[in-house]
Formats: sequence, C-alpha cells, structure tokens
Amino acid sequence: MTTLDPLAASCPAPRSETERVLLGHGSGGQLSAALISNVLVPALGAAAPPGPLEDAAVVAVDGDHVVVSTDAYVVSPLFFPGGDIGTLAVNGTVNDLAMRAAMPVALAVAYVVEEGFPLADLRRVAASVGTAARAAGVPVVTGDTKVVGRGAADGVFVITTGIGRRLPGAAPSAAGAEPGDAVLLSGAIGRHGTTILSVREGLGFEVDISSDTQPLHRLVDTMVRAGGTAVHALRDPTRGGIASALGEIAAASGVGIEIDERALPVPAPVHAACEILGLDPAHVANEGCLVAFVAPQWADAVLAAMRSQPEGAGAVRIGTVLDAVPGQVVVRTAMGSRRVLDMLVGEQLPRIC
Amino acid sequence: MTTLDPLAASCPAPRSETERVLLGHGSGGQLSAALISNVLVPALGAAAPPGPLEDAAVVAVDGDHVVVSTDAYVVSPLFFPGGDIGTLAVNGTVNDLAMRAAMPVALAVAYVVEEGFPLADLRRVAASVGTAARAAGVPVVTGDTKVVGRGAADGVFVITTGIGRRLPGAAPSAAGAEPGDAVLLSGAIGRHGTTILSVREGLGFEVDISSDTQPLHRLVDTMVRAGGTAVHALRDPTRGGIASALGEIAAASGVGIEIDERALPVPAPVHAACEILGLDPAHVANEGCLVAFVAPQWADAVLAAMRSQPEGAGAVRIGTVLDAVPGQVVVRTAMGSRRVLDMLVGEQLPRIC
Repeated sequence: MTTLDPLAASCPAPRSETERVLLGHGSGGQLSAALISNVLVPALGAAAPPGPLEDAAVVAVDGDHVVVSTDAYVVSPLFFPGGDIGTLAVNGTVNDLAMRAAMPVALAVAYVVEEGFPLADLRRVAASVGTAARAAGVPVVTGDTKVVGRGAADGVFVITTGIGRRLPGAAPSAAGAEPGDAVLLSGAIGRHGTTILSVREGLGFEVDISSDTQPLHRLVDTMVRAGGTAVHALRDPTRGGIASALGEIAAASGVGIEIDERALPVPAPVHAACEILGLDPAHVANEGCLVAFVAPQWADAVLAAMRSQPEGAGAVRIGTVLDAVPGQVVVRTAMGSRRVLDMLVGEQLPRIC
Repeated sequence: MTTLDPLAASCPAPRSETERVLLGHGSGGQLSAALISNVLVPALGAAAPPGPLEDAAVVAVDGDHVVVSTDAYVVSPLFFPGGDIGTLAVNGTVNDLAMRAAMPVALAVAYVVEEGFPLADLRRVAASVGTAARAAGVPVVTGDTKVVGRGAADGVFVITTGIGRRLPGAAPSAAGAEPGDAVLLSGAIGRHGTTILSVREGLGFEVDISSDTQPLHRLVDTMVRAGGTAVHALRDPTRGGIASALGEIAAASGVGIEIDERALPVPAPVHAACEILGLDPAHVANEGCLVAFVAPQWADAVLAAMRSQPEGAGAVRIGTVLDAVPGQVVVRTAMGSRRVLDMLVGEQLPRIC
C-alpha cells in the first residue's frame, strides 16, 4: 500500500517534471490508465498503436492475423497457494491472448534475476513455467535471462510474451460491447488477490482459498463456437479487479453497464478477508476468470457453453449493457439502490501479479 | 564485477540446492549458457524449443513463418552517450530478429518501474522507445507497465519482444556455418561496452566514444539481397562480445573458426579504455554490429553490399571457418602465433544491456 499523491489522484495527468512514479501507476486502475494515456503512448508518436488499448494486439503478417501480448510479472510472494510467479506468467499471457479470441501458438519468456537468488527457487519457477506451458499446450520458443546486483531487483521477475492465432469468425474487442448485451462472468471473483494478500500479511485465509490462476483459452474456444461474432467483448479482470475490467469496457465501447451485486459470486473466505482488509471484492485481482459481453439472443447459448467447461462451471449472468450513462458502471445493490462502481484509483494491492 | 564461484566456473552445471544466482549467470558467457542449458531449458520439458538456441525463434502461424525474439534490458546507467535504455531495447530486439533475416513487423514493450523513479526520466525513456521504433520503421503494438516498491528494482527495466517476417530466400541459423565460409564483421567493435563502463566508472573515455547502438535490419536486407542463402549465419556480438558470438556459432555449427587479430577493427579510444580496464576488446559488448558467415564464392559480393550501407561502411573480412577444431575459435595474433579465444566466463561487465 502506498500513500497517494492527492494531486495525482484527482488529476491523473502527470504535469510536473518533479513528479515521481507511484506504486499506484502500476495498479491497473485510474493512475495506470493515466500513465499509459498521458506518458507512454504519446511518447511513441507515429509508432503508437491505433484504436483502443487491448490486452493483446492483432498484427498482420503476410495477411495472417497474429495476436501478440506481453506482461511483466512481479508478484510478491513468488510462491503462493494455487501457483507461483511462473504459473501466473504463463496463464496470464495465455489469457490476454484468449481475450482477443486467440489460441496460444508460442511463448517467449524473459527472466530478470537478482544476484544471490537461490538457484533452487529459480529452478522451481522455471519448472512451473514448463508445467503451465505444457498444460496450456503452448511451446516456449525463445527467452532471455538477465542478472542484476543485490538490491537491484526483488528475487525474480518473469516477463512473458505470447503469440496467438485468432479463432476464425471471432473478433472480440474492448470497443465491441453494445447496448442490450448480456454481461457474463465465468466464475467466482476475488480469489487471487485475497490469497496473495493473506499470505503476505499472514492472515491465514490461504488455508481456505487459493489463487484461481488457470488458462482460459479452451473456455473461450467453447464460447466462440457457441456464440461466434455475438461474443462482442472479453476481459479477464486481473489488476484492479472486475470493477476496472468493466470500467475499461464501458469506456472503450462508450456504453454504460449495470451489474446486479447479488449475482456476483464471492466465495465466503474472500468475503471474510475483504471485510477484514476493508477491500471491495470488485477491486480484487483475479487470474482465472473472465467477463464476456454477448448479444442478448446468444447469451443463453454462450452461458450454457461456458458451464460445460470446468473453467466456466460457475458461470453466471451478472448484468446488462445500457444505452445510457456511457463510460459508467452502475451496481444495483442487494438493498435495491444503485451506486456507481469506480475503477480503482492508485494502488490497493501492489505486486499482485 | 563479481567474484566467481570457482566451482561454478570450472563446472558450470549448477548442482547444489544451496547454490545461488551469480552476476555471471547473466553475462552472456559460459555461466549464462550453463544456466540456460542446465536449468531453464530442461525445466520446460516438452514445452522446450527444439534445435539450437537462437537470438530469435521461428514460429509457424497458418503456414507463415513469424520470427519472435524477447530481451530484458537492465543497463546501468540508464542514459549514456549514443543512447539510453529505450534506444537499446528497441534496437537490440530489432537486431535479434535481423539475425534470423527477419524484418520487424511489431514490437511489444513492458516496463518494470521502481516506485519513486522520476516521471521525467520515464518520459525520456519512453520517448527514446518511440524515436527508435520510428527510426526502425516498426510500430509498438502492445505493452505492460508494472511498478514495484522502492529498492525492489533499479529505476526502470525495459523488456521488448519483436515480431518479424522472414525475408524470402534466407534462412541464416546459428547452426548454419560451414567449413570454408568467410567470416565478415560489419564495423568497429567494443564501443558500447567501453562507453557504458567509462560512464559508470567516470573514466572520461565517453568524450571520444559512444555506444554503437543502431538497428541492423536494413543492413541484413542488403546482405540477403546480395547473398541469399549463401548467408549461412548471422550474430550480433552483444553480451560477451565477439568472442562469445563466434564461440556460440562454432559450437552450434560444430565447426572451428580462425580469426586474424590484425583484421579486428578496434577504435583507438576503445583500445585505450580496454588497456586501462584490463579487458580484451573481443569480450566487450556491441549493440550495432554483426558477424556474418558467408559461402566463400559469395563473400566479396556480400562484403561489397555491406559497405554500401552506412551501418556496414567499415565492414571487413576477419577470418575463415575451419574443417578442424570443432567448437573452437582460434586467433592468429599480430605476432603470427595462435591462441584459443575463449568465451567469457562469468561476469565482466554486469548490466551492459
């Protein structure tokens, strides 16, 4: 956790040359979005990507559509119930490809290792990369390893880039949600973030919960077979939780989203941990579920397809895309009232992935 | 610099679970090779890449050949004469693609930033990424940004992944060198490494030299147009210098290599800096030159093509591939004697790229 610079929080565009990077700039929430939109993308000039920012980019190579995604993993602790930084690095990148309806073809893996890091731990992380890659059915085709001095990194960081091939007849995009779309969620939320935080803070909830890290490309394959182009948008609610994922889709698609709070599947240990920590489960990171925006006449078929897969066995409909309040996510509470669900501002759970 | 574990140096396979990662494991030399061969690749099992380890991998996507390369940049200092970490991250990855005769189609860029890093410096690095990407003619299509707490990283690390398209009629490979091949070098060696070290140690040589960082794909394009499949192998001598690059080709191709020491272009300030620092220029990192292994009957044409480009204006023939001493690189010295040129063991210049 970090103390937020109130100026930066209320006015996210960095202005002064004396400003410094905050933990919140890596949160996946509003500060991250401001850093990307106001600093990193404009710096690229003509080399910047066109269109909305997606989890993965589609690249034309000789007429083919190759999908590319990259992610740096800095999770702390490195090992946790349900997986470790290696598992996360493979599954997270596979899932970013899957959110563009791409099946993974190849992975590139880079390690930044701190001098003095136990070789046994590096071996364990590398074994997890191998196990997760085999489980997802994707080869690791190239890599890089850099070592920095003691204190210049924290153990090991793993950076994975995925190359994928798009499923025929599918083109989900963050900008694709349409009024009337059903909002579907593939399973329980909050497990990854509360597991990490519980281990880090020694809260003991990790006895009852574990990270939900898993690859989602087979689930997406099933959904696209059932719904085709009616699957308008897909997002995995990682950093910033489901609130940020929904907020990003609302912003990119220029639509409003209404969510039924009672429909959100929050496991009891996640609920208990969030109560103690003062967190909203909607802001907690996930690593093994997705939200889908599906044309209403196809929603039941896609939901049934999701439930046919182990990764989507707990899939539910959580809301609807509105023709009003563009860019906003509104929650209908258990009490029947409505409140706006904000994207995370700043950093709630640093180094969650 | 680090004190090498003598056991690890003489017997690079890590054996004990109490062993720790050394700076030398990231040097690009023998310890790096041992870490990759004995730890990282075996951990992948069936998910490991087949064939020799290359700077970039060729991936089949719907029959197309897509080339992929990833590199983590951790150079210190971040800014230096001739460029910065952003310039290096773009050019280095473009060059890894080029060594497989691939022209860059897209880049993915990930940043790992330390909390408290000046936003002005991040803006400067991001601007260099943009400038270098535009100069190379390649778009940045996707990215990621993570922030870690103070002391958990050193300023900023930049991890770039490149996607490339192979030039038709070219298939250079680290395993492709053949006895009789001419060994060509595109220009002066030692500039990048001595510049970084001079800045870091305050030696003052950086007044006379600057990093040679530059993209080499246009040079490779010209070479392949001139020599086609006669261009058997390409390597950019980065970490570990030209000694490691030649040693890797000798090992992967199962051939010997003889180099004429007098033919190696070493600029006077590089020579002076290496004398003072006790370095062999052949072990010093470069970021803007390449070695090529070309069938003898095509060597003159390829050399002329290289000299027609600004990046290859100083190209020279430095040696020949032998039918003897497989895996070894032999240097014919100015005195007429011969010595074996070893790959770097351990770490000579940590965080050079």
